[in-house]
Amino acid sequence: MTEAHVHRVQIYYEDTDHSGLVYHANYLKYFERAREHLLGVEELVRLLEEEGVGFVVYKAAMTFKRGAVFGDTIEIRTQVKSESDYRIVFSQNVFRGEELLVEGQVEMVCVDATTKLVKLPVSVLERLG
Amino acid sequence: MTEAHVHRVQIYYEDTDHSGLVYHANYLKYFERAREHLLGVEELVRLLEEEGVGFVVYKAAMTFKRGAVFGDTIEIRTQVKSESDYRIVFSQNVFRGEELLVEGQVEMVCVDATTKLVKLPVSVLERLG
Amino acid sequence: MTEAHVHRVQIYYEDTDHSGLVYHANYLKYFERAREHLLGVEELVRLLEEEGVGFVVYKAAMTFKRGAVFGDTIEIRTQVKSESDYRIVFSQNVFRGEELLVEGQVEMVCVDATTKLVKLPVSVLERLG
Amino acid sequence: MTEAHVHRVQIYYEDTDHSGLVYHANYLKYFERAREHLLGVEELVRLLEEEGVGFVVYKAAMTFKRGAVFGDTIEIRTQVKSESDYRIVFSQNVFRGEELLVEGQVEMVCVDATTKLVKLPVSVLERLG
Repeated sequence: MTEAHVHRVQIYYEDTDHSGLVYHANYLKYFERAREHLLGVEELVRLLEEEGVGFVVYKAAMTFKRGAVFGDTIEIRTQVKSESDYRIVFSQNVFRGEELLVEGQVEMVCVDATTKLVKLPVSVLERLG
Repeated sequence: MTEAHVHRVQIYYEDTDHSGLVYHANYLKYFERAREHLLGVEELVRLLEEEGVGFVVYKAAMTFKRGAVFGDTIEIRTQVKSESDYRIVFSQNVFRGEELLVEGQVEMVCVDATTKLVKLPVSVLERLG
Repeated sequence: MTEAHVHRVQIYYEDTDHSGLVYHANYLKYFERAREHLLGVEELVRLLEEEGVGFVVYKAAMTFKRGAVFGDTIEIRTQVKSESDYRIVFSQNVFRGEELLVEGQVEMVCVDATTKLVKLPVSVLERLG
Repeated sequence: MTEAHVHRVQIYYEDTDHSGLVYHANYLKYFERAREHLLGVEELVRLLEEEGVGFVVYKAAMTFKRGAVFGDTIEIRTQVKSESDYRIVFSQNVFRGEELLVEGQVEMVCVDATTKLVKLPVSVLERLG
């Protein structure tokens, strides 16, 4: 995938803290929203309900360069950095216009209903191309 | 205002709790997102930055009839129920299709930088019509 | 129950928003933490795991008088206002010292694994006295 | 500092998601609660109010090994890994009993009211020893 998937997030009161900036942990929420759209919400629901397979975050890392504020619309730009049978690594960066706010990297794996590691579903890998 | 303002919310992992349903307190977040779009995010930012005036929730009440789940897209339908110089009462109901999930009512007032009650800004009242 | 159950909450960055005050929806979280201690966390876990019975909020109402800020320690004072076979009404008020910040009322019911309404568990009613 | 600072966290409904486990982003909240107690909440409030100096997260990384569930009491064990005039690196690990759930590392810096980088306050460094 050469082009990044773009997910826009509007910053509301709930997103900020008393410093006036977005609370740092919230960027992980925006990353997840973006990944769900990239992977396909309907397919994620189907995998969970019919096959008992869910995606879970195994590693996450972020570097915070600038903070978003109330009223901002930011972009989460997501790219698959690497993938194997068992894990996908996403590069997820946050931009306000062309200004880079946060650099992130998230590694995901799949587990079954007993939280045992399973192969990534073919349906999702095909969608990612 | 006869027709309700509609704000759509996609339900992500972050919104749910271990019961499988949306965590009850989160509906207050969706209500606020909806009100901010109805009142106008840009004008809210301007009022805060230039005039030091902010909207705060004075009362909130909700009745929970059904719960939304991961993958749902729900609608927040907001109407101004009554308004005076100092307060606006919003009726805010949550629908999944035509199924009513949550009934809410939120009363808002405005405060200045010292948290003293002030009149509602004319700019906002005019927008509400 | 004549005396209120007291649950203390320390206000962290995560609790506040860019107004400098605690985000209004968060008080519902503190109310729930308080109720879980009052009802008994271990018994709630057992009811869910062994009997498939969970408590859910049916109604919630709050009046916000003053806002807590970062660094505050607040008290959630909870009392059972009324109860029947199917519902409990809690009065839950937030204090900072002797200053009343938020008045709340929360009505709870019990549902089984299919979200059907069931009687309140005897084990919990006995604990409440 | 050879011994880890221990901060206990009770897992409530609000902490979990529909997978049944604690939502991954929430561990960053627990890390922050722990650091605030380690650094001293009162001194953090004083620094912000009197000197306009605040701590901000510059980098955060987590590896998720096991998930906590509703009813768990977990421990955040925090140690200062390294510090310089401008940054502190914390090692923050989450345990349930002696089972390691999450490994984290958080790097913090200080900024003034204009978000310009400033030296770490002496009062805090002295407390850390």
